Amino acid sequence: MLSTTPRTSLGRSKERGRTSRDDLYAVLDAGLVCHLGVVVDGSPRVVPTGYGRIGDTLYLHGSTGATSLRGDGEVCVTVTHLDGVVLARSVFHHSMNYRSAMIYGRPRLVLDEEERLAGLRAITEQLAPGQWDATRAPTRKELAATAVVALSLAEASVKVRQGPPKDDEEDYALPIWAGVLPLRQSWGAPETDPAMTSELEVPAHVAARPAPGR
Amino acid sequence: MLSTTPRTSLGRSKERGRTSRDDLYAVLDAGLVCHLGVVVDGSPRVVPTGYGRIGDTLYLHGSTGATSLRGDGEVCVTVTHLDGVVLARSVFHHSMNYRSAMIYGRPRLVLDEEERLAGLRAITEQLAPGQWDATRAPTRKELAATAVVALSLAEASVKVRQGPPKDDEEDYALPIWAGVLPLRQSWGAPETDPAMTSELEVPAHVAARPAPGR
Repeated sequence: MLSTTPRTSLGRSKERGRTSRDDLYAVLDAGLVCHLGVVVDGSPRVVPTGYGRIGDTLYLHGSTGATSLRGDGEVCVTVTHLDGVVLARSVFHHSMNYRSAMIYGRPRLVLDEEERLAGLRAITEQLAPGQWDATRAPTRKELAATAVVALSLAEASVKVRQGPPKDDEEDYALPIWAGVLPLRQSWGAPETDPAMTSELEVPAHVAARPAPGR
Repeated sequence: MLSTTPRTSLGRSKERGRTSRDDLYAVLDAGLVCHLGVVVDGSPRVVPTGYGRIGDTLYLHGSTGATSLRGDGEVCVTVTHLDGVVLARSVFHHSMNYRSAMIYGRPRLVLDEEERLAGLRAITEQLAPGQWDATRAPTRKELAATAVVALSLAEASVKVRQGPPKDDEEDYALPIWAGVLPLRQSWGAPETDPAMTSELEVPAHVAARPAPGR
């Protein structure tokens, strides 16, 4: 079960809330980037960035100089999947079908080398499964330039909307088409780097990668 | 030209910066949702939400009770398009191809009825082009329940990464496949609401909607 705190209790559209940790994992594991919110000099900043999950910990990384990971304040991490546009009979009831997760917490700078590597591996594998073992490992210098932070998934909420529009009772009689326009993501054909120095086949984990977002 | 303030000057990867207003408009106009960052009780909150643009103003809406639009503090709005996963020869140089825009500002609650309607129309048309005129207009009661805020695009930055990986010179000799796995978005077949009370064809603006994200 996801714990409930005032800010993870849904104020609006409570019927869209999900309360199991599996729902949280499913939304996170299907994503490629999150939107990381931090407060810098009192103002919010929202940055798209990669992430990885191990159990109940989310890992983020960045340059050791990046402002967005430098502070020790609270952050909010949001992952959103758009599944379709909900076309209602009234302007007012237009909506989106989506799955989203929101995590609040105070990230911990990871200092242990073993956890740092595990975190970086999780982040790489989230973006590009199979690539950690298929490519050159990070050097000591590269590792020194990379900050890894860990965020507990203890305070999180999940919201899901699926299905047809919900119109006002009297509007169902209107001669207006209503429904959902589904939004899909897919991988295009892999584009080999023109700078390749030898002819190599596209690896199977790239060529046959399952469709994203699910 | 986009103006430059300390927080919209790119600290990292400066070569990814774009400086024309047309680049900003292009990123915004291709999107379906933004991630809105606000500060609530000193902590960041990041919420996915729809938006619309008229000239150099971005419009957002929400319930009059929604916490994220209630404050009068600064916000950050980020729109991100993921175009592909960049698969490098080294773990360290893995990346994403993307287009993103970030806008900072203090939103203004829109009170003028004409501007409120124009803003709501822009938000609806961004999500569902053609639907404002095709569906039932908002009632006085619906309008009263909806808050519309305007955010100037005066302080904004645009970042774009496209193309193959950039590996370290010595890594190009490695026998490792490198390239880009492009990520595409498309509309699925429209799903008619099973609760339709009459048989109507899917309108052309829905059935023939151009692919999203571009």
